[in-house]
Amino acid sequence: MTTTRDHILACGGRIVHHKGFTATGLQEILHAADVPKGSFYFYFKSKEEFGLALVDHYQAWFAGQVRPILKDETLPPLERLAGFFLWFRGYFEQEGFIKGCPIGNLTQELGDVNPAFREKLNASFDGLIRFMTRLLAEAGTRGELPDHLEPEPTARYILSAWQGALIRMKAAAGPEPLDTFQHMTFKVLLA
Amino acid sequence: MTTTRDHILACGGRIVHHKGFTATGLQEILHAADVPKGSFYFYFKSKEEFGLALVDHYQAWFAGQVRPILKDETLPPLERLAGFFLWFRGYFEQEGFIKGCPIGNLTQELGDVNPAFREKLNASFDGLIRFMTRLLAEAGTRGELPDHLEPEPTARYILSAWQGALIRMKAAAGPEPLDTFQHMTFKVLLA
Repeated sequence: MTTTRDHILACGGRIVHHKGFTATGLQEILHAADVPKGSFYFYFKSKEEFGLALVDHYQAWFAGQVRPILKDETLPPLERLAGFFLWFRGYFEQEGFIKGCPIGNLTQELGDVNPAFREKLNASFDGLIRFMTRLLAEAGTRGELPDHLEPEPTARYILSAWQGALIRMKAAAGPEPLDTFQHMTFKVLLA
Repeated sequence: MTTTRDHILACGGRIVHHKGFTATGLQEILHAADVPKGSFYFYFKSKEEFGLALVDHYQAWFAGQVRPILKDETLPPLERLAGFFLWFRGYFEQEGFIKGCPIGNLTQELGDVNPAFREKLNASFDGLIRFMTRLLAEAGTRGELPDHLEPEPTARYILSAWQGALIRMKAAAGPEPLDTFQHMTFKVLLA
């Protein structure tokens, strides 16, 4: 069941994802969610608390989208990892190669001006690094990772390359940065 | 000679670099530059025109900083490229690992909501890709680039990895993402 709180996060989250947190006014969020101001403040003490809750909301959203790919143990670990990024490539194609990563966007905008956001966003990246490290280590155990690659720094590097590809995508307004990421990561670095 | 226009760009640019474009008010820019509003509007038709001029300003600033490293023909091309990124690592250490890339920040914030910014920021990334491609091709000619790497996609990937490392730096509030970038790019990918 979708609660009113979830509904506000979903509607407001879509606007923040595109326009950014600071550029999104409370009125826009209320209008998109079709709720009165009192309802918003019943669930969130402030716009900041709403923003912090968005980090969890975005995480839960994309975990739900890619879980089937990641849990598919019929596929080797590197294919699951490649499928994870390809799923997002499909998502961004549908969106017209805009918006980028909501976690990356909030980090860019608020990471170094708001300590509460920084901590929460860093934890989000750390979770993704741990998950990618596990997949790369599993590939290593199966002899499917080149010997000179250590799982953790490789995971950190790939996450950076992905975040940067999503920034370049917004400048290129097309798929090249994501396709270059997929090719270089899976056909060159990990091959 | 520093003109009033340059002075406004330098003072305003420092605030925008840290806080973002939307979050920076005109009053803050006027206050930092110690100029009246009429002076700002004499040089810039609008805040948007000021923002577009900032892209050139940032580019000129960092080109000036790293030119001596890039032009140092006593060094092999990959060492010049490594020195380029190490210079920025030093800069960000001095700044406390905040702010990130001003071009990347503007792309994240405005790339897909403002076509004039998108075009200008994309041209800026393209310039950097061309320059990195030339260095990698030069390394190739000298037999210093692994055979399986093509200069252009490799340059595009490294630029993405760098932009993403700068986002992760803002979440990590420390050097790990930049050090991982340097290690993985120069000791693993290009080695």
